[in-house]
Amino acid sequence: MKLLIAPAAFKGSLTALQAAQAIEAGWTKVFARHQLTLFPFANGGEGTAALLTQQRQGTLHHYEVRDPLGRPVQAALGLVDNGQTAVIDVASASGLHCLQREQRDPIHASSYGTGQLIRHALDLGVSKIIVGLGDSATNEAGAGLFQALGGRLFDAHGNLLGDPCQGGNMLELARVFHIDLSEFDPRIAKTRFELACDVSNPILGADGATRVYGPQKGVAEDQMPAFEAALTAVAAVLHRDLGIDVTRRAHSGAAGGIGAMLMVACRASAFPGASYVMEACGLEQKVAEADLILTGEGQSDQRSAQEKVPLLVLDLARRQRKPAIMLSGAIRDASNLMLSWPAASMFATLTENKAWEDMLASAGADLEMCAYNLARTLKMARELPL
Amino acid sequence: MKLLIAPAAFKGSLTALQAAQAIEAGWTKVFARHQLTLFPFANGGEGTAALLTQQRQGTLHHYEVRDPLGRPVQAALGLVDNGQTAVIDVASASGLHCLQREQRDPIHASSYGTGQLIRHALDLGVSKIIVGLGDSATNEAGAGLFQALGGRLFDAHGNLLGDPCQGGNMLELARVFHIDLSEFDPRIAKTRFELACDVSNPILGADGATRVYGPQKGVAEDQMPAFEAALTAVAAVLHRDLGIDVTRRAHSGAAGGIGAMLMVACRASAFPGASYVMEACGLEQKVAEADLILTGEGQSDQRSAQEKVPLLVLDLARRQRKPAIMLSGAIRDASNLMLSWPAASMFATLTENKAWEDMLASAGADLEMCAYNLARTLKMARELPL
Repeated sequence: MKLLIAPAAFKGSLTALQAAQAIEAGWTKVFARHQLTLFPFANGGEGTAALLTQQRQGTLHHYEVRDPLGRPVQAALGLVDNGQTAVIDVASASGLHCLQREQRDPIHASSYGTGQLIRHALDLGVSKIIVGLGDSATNEAGAGLFQALGGRLFDAHGNLLGDPCQGGNMLELARVFHIDLSEFDPRIAKTRFELACDVSNPILGADGATRVYGPQKGVAEDQMPAFEAALTAVAAVLHRDLGIDVTRRAHSGAAGGIGAMLMVACRASAFPGASYVMEACGLEQKVAEADLILTGEGQSDQRSAQEKVPLLVLDLARRQRKPAIMLSGAIRDASNLMLSWPAASMFATLTENKAWEDMLASAGADLEMCAYNLARTLKMARELPL
Repeated sequence: MKLLIAPAAFKGSLTALQAAQAIEAGWTKVFARHQLTLFPFANGGEGTAALLTQQRQGTLHHYEVRDPLGRPVQAALGLVDNGQTAVIDVASASGLHCLQREQRDPIHASSYGTGQLIRHALDLGVSKIIVGLGDSATNEAGAGLFQALGGRLFDAHGNLLGDPCQGGNMLELARVFHIDLSEFDPRIAKTRFELACDVSNPILGADGATRVYGPQKGVAEDQMPAFEAALTAVAAVLHRDLGIDVTRRAHSGAAGGIGAMLMVACRASAFPGASYVMEACGLEQKVAEADLILTGEGQSDQRSAQEKVPLLVLDLARRQRKPAIMLSGAIRDASNLMLSWPAASMFATLTENKAWEDMLASAGADLEMCAYNLARTLKMARELPL
């Protein structure tokens, strides 16, 4: 039997790859001979570059760049389409996963390393760069990335705002008054940028980057106005100096506002990440080749306005009349979800009330056991006169 | 396909019958033509008389007797074995389910009605009475039951302790000094009593009736010593006046100490309830006739020293090489349980963290949905090249 294992990340506990591997481990304990295809479904965040590169038979290269706090980090860059296209994700150089929990520091966290990575891509002579946006540690509207590419930011008195990675304070972006592209890497204008964004939020406002995703990056409640002011200033100069207003555009708030910067400074086209990855990887074909599809995520519910990876996978399977099962960490309002999402069935790895930390700590083992339990159920079903 | 549905009660939310019906409802939404056998597995508590009567093709009769607080209640008595055997359970007349939660009142709650039910059984001329012990509202060592059968209790001054149902205070049992059988129903001596006990606890001590099960009946922490003194006094006079010490016997603490009273006053033989019911109902044969067995309970874990109904069912299935699946409200330490209990697989109806009250309130709907989800999984499995 051919099994396609296509989970999203279990946020806070498992990367999509770890989730896929946990399912694989549980499954193969029961069915040793099934043909398993792992599709660790990244939707712009961590793992996006690796997934696209692997699925499109490209090669993965690593470069030392700056992490969110300016320290050296090895970041990944994929080359696909015979070297014509580079694939990176902001999580690789500028992601939350680069930091310990207590190191989260949105005042100093910069996307500078992602800009360095784009430079490396340009050096390789690509004509297109795909950037995955998601899971960033930053909330600086891509200011660091812009500087790494040669862009310059000035205040109202004509003073250059220094490289934020040299101890800079992102809240000073509130003073930005002018953007200068005279030293901006000229190859960018000849390069097509496509963004796979994990969220559709705009850069500003009540559902903007700071308000919604700031807290998970370490933005304290009382810092919200200062960060909002910084992003507002950047958006304003992007509009005035470069002629494009992104404040109402979907995805401009992706990756702490990097979406906005890339849309304007690099004329990037932004796409919903999951759909983009799905098409870029030919997931439809993989579903067609599978007998059964498994998907899942950390917590499934109906509340999110964002693209839900499992729901996309379930829909894809439904359209091809393939059976699909969802394994998630927890399922909220399961009765309604079971009736409204097009899964053959759905299971939660949570089977008792647990403290949040305990849930996260045992997520991998629990998911493996859930897959094992499901596989045992199916194995048993073979013997039933159903 | 033949399906045997044999859950225990989901304590606090669903009777075993309600649990079985919820599973049936979910299952038949997917498989309309399966042959379903419902076995609402009572282990001495609520539903025991109904289950044994139904399974042994007897007839169920109802009598008006006193409920735990002396009010009239219709209680059930089953006649089986061509009228030779009566089956009752203390829950029917003296059970917690007779009371609203705020009516729980162990100081006044009496097993008098169960004694009346035994009298009705004797009137029917039976040679054997099976009594299910469990889910009682009482903690009075069967004093009320004893009085209903003509037994009399005296204090050290020769004063008769009055019928506790006439406003009596069970804590006065601490004054009991002498037991008198002169007016005790003489038919009892010629009748065989068998007890199906839901717990094996002794009547006294740290793992005794009061300490372990008092709280769920309404015994407050500061009332513990007074109740313990009352049961200690009854156990002492049973020993001195009737010659049998039950304080160390398993099951003497069943149903608030009714176990002890019946063992001594009625020379009853006590058995673990689940095993007793299993054999009395020929469950082994029903398992043999089934293609798949479903069991479950409110919360499954490995901690209980008591007989676990689902584990008994799973073991029975295993011995006959029949596939069995467990559906429980919650499963604690599921990874270990999945590896150690002989189930093909096991599922919890809980799929997200929930407040206790929410869990109880949605227990029926959640169990139905869990069975529905499982059935859909099996239906899907038919199409897989497993």
